[in-house]
Amino acid sequence: MPRYKLTIEYDGSGFSGWQRQDDRPSIQQELEEAIERYCSTFCEITCAGRTDAGVHAAGQVAHVDLPQARSPFSIQQGINFHLATRQISVIKVEEVNDNFHARFSATRREYLYRLINRSPWLGLDRGRAWQVPEPLDAEAMHAAAQLLIGSHDFTSFRDSACQSKSPLKTLDRLDVVRDGEEIRFHVSARSFLHHQVRNMVGTLRLIGNGKWTASDLTKALEARSRSAAGETAPPDGLYLIKVSY
Amino acid sequence: MPRYKLTIEYDGSGFSGWQRQDDRPSIQQELEEAIERYCSTFCEITCAGRTDAGVHAAGQVAHVDLPQARSPFSIQQGINFHLATRQISVIKVEEVNDNFHARFSATRREYLYRLINRSPWLGLDRGRAWQVPEPLDAEAMHAAAQLLIGSHDFTSFRDSACQSKSPLKTLDRLDVVRDGEEIRFHVSARSFLHHQVRNMVGTLRLIGNGKWTASDLTKALEARSRSAAGETAPPDGLYLIKVSY
Repeated sequence: MPRYKLTIEYDGSGFSGWQRQDDRPSIQQELEEAIERYCSTFCEITCAGRTDAGVHAAGQVAHVDLPQARSPFSIQQGINFHLATRQISVIKVEEVNDNFHARFSATRREYLYRLINRSPWLGLDRGRAWQVPEPLDAEAMHAAAQLLIGSHDFTSFRDSACQSKSPLKTLDRLDVVRDGEEIRFHVSARSFLHHQVRNMVGTLRLIGNGKWTASDLTKALEARSRSAAGETAPPDGLYLIKVSY
Repeated sequence: MPRYKLTIEYDGSGFSGWQRQDDRPSIQQELEEAIERYCSTFCEITCAGRTDAGVHAAGQVAHVDLPQARSPFSIQQGINFHLATRQISVIKVEEVNDNFHARFSATRREYLYRLINRSPWLGLDRGRAWQVPEPLDAEAMHAAAQLLIGSHDFTSFRDSACQSKSPLKTLDRLDVVRDGEEIRFHVSARSFLHHQVRNMVGTLRLIGNGKWTASDLTKALEARSRSAAGETAPPDGLYLIKVSY
């Protein structure tokens, strides 16, 4: 069965996340149902990063084995045509070898986290960014964030439901950049623990509002305890931007 | 009665536009109902630019006369608290003189138009940008757009329902900038005709895809006939960004 790599964009609002759930529609279910309508066969799809409820993607990657070969363009058009929701769009399809695996072959995952630093709620970016009212010092957040770069035991930033065998991860990039009232976090690594990006962003808020110094962040990392770090930032601001192979 | 200037942000999706309509909720109605709940008095609000159905705003301005003076901060909080929708947010309130008029005192209006130049539909920016499939040459669009700068009779870009007394307008800026697959139009003038921005963007598509040359655009402008210009771009990509006084 020929294998295809799909690049997928979605607005995660209202979905239970990537993974199939019993109670709410998921990205995986919507795509698998569209593929089944397109191919008349159920085909399981596997993604690079199982995003949580409310998390968005501009460049999620998945692979699927189809019962017969078709052109990448007709697969892209066919799946989109059969999708029941327009919140999801397959933006690219490529034929790949049998040894390509969306999750295990990935060498780099890039996320963007959008924070809007202002008091009034978000009319335009509702569900698409985290609104934080107190003034944040983005330069201090960026400077402190560099303490997290490199290989560390990230237990303090790991959700209790995380299924990863090891809490050791290597963080390649965590840049914090202010553009007007928006603060953007550019984050990349080979792989992440469950909620790691959101827990790092939530903890950096404490640096930004002056409750913590940079050395408090080091202490939190070294504590290897989730309770030593800050809150989990909401899913609204998180975007899976790119997966590299 | 003290007069206040409100700066308002909204996601125009699902609204009939700024102005009150019988059949569908409008931005004006939502705000006036919130103000009435806040003040226990009906107060009419007047805006700088009556955006159409589906058009968004990051910096719409309106004025309202309230029955009694209150602090700008409590008015901002109070109106937002009483809004029935979270698609609208009052982001700033300032006390102004009686001679301030949101519409007639405005000296400059700035719009952004977002176009996504790609074949697959928009999962993430659905309702927030115009998806155009054929490749567009943004540099050619920008160069041609400069022919529209200055004072002209813009009848060719004017909707038949336009209530402006004169078709003469002075266009100060029409910059077309590509950023990856996105093309942004930065447009500003003291005032615009009805649908002028969307008609200019729709016409510039013809330059971008090579159907028209720059001299065709000049001919369309000089024809002073709506049928001489191109299509009306959809409201989804249009944002009222800033109004200056």
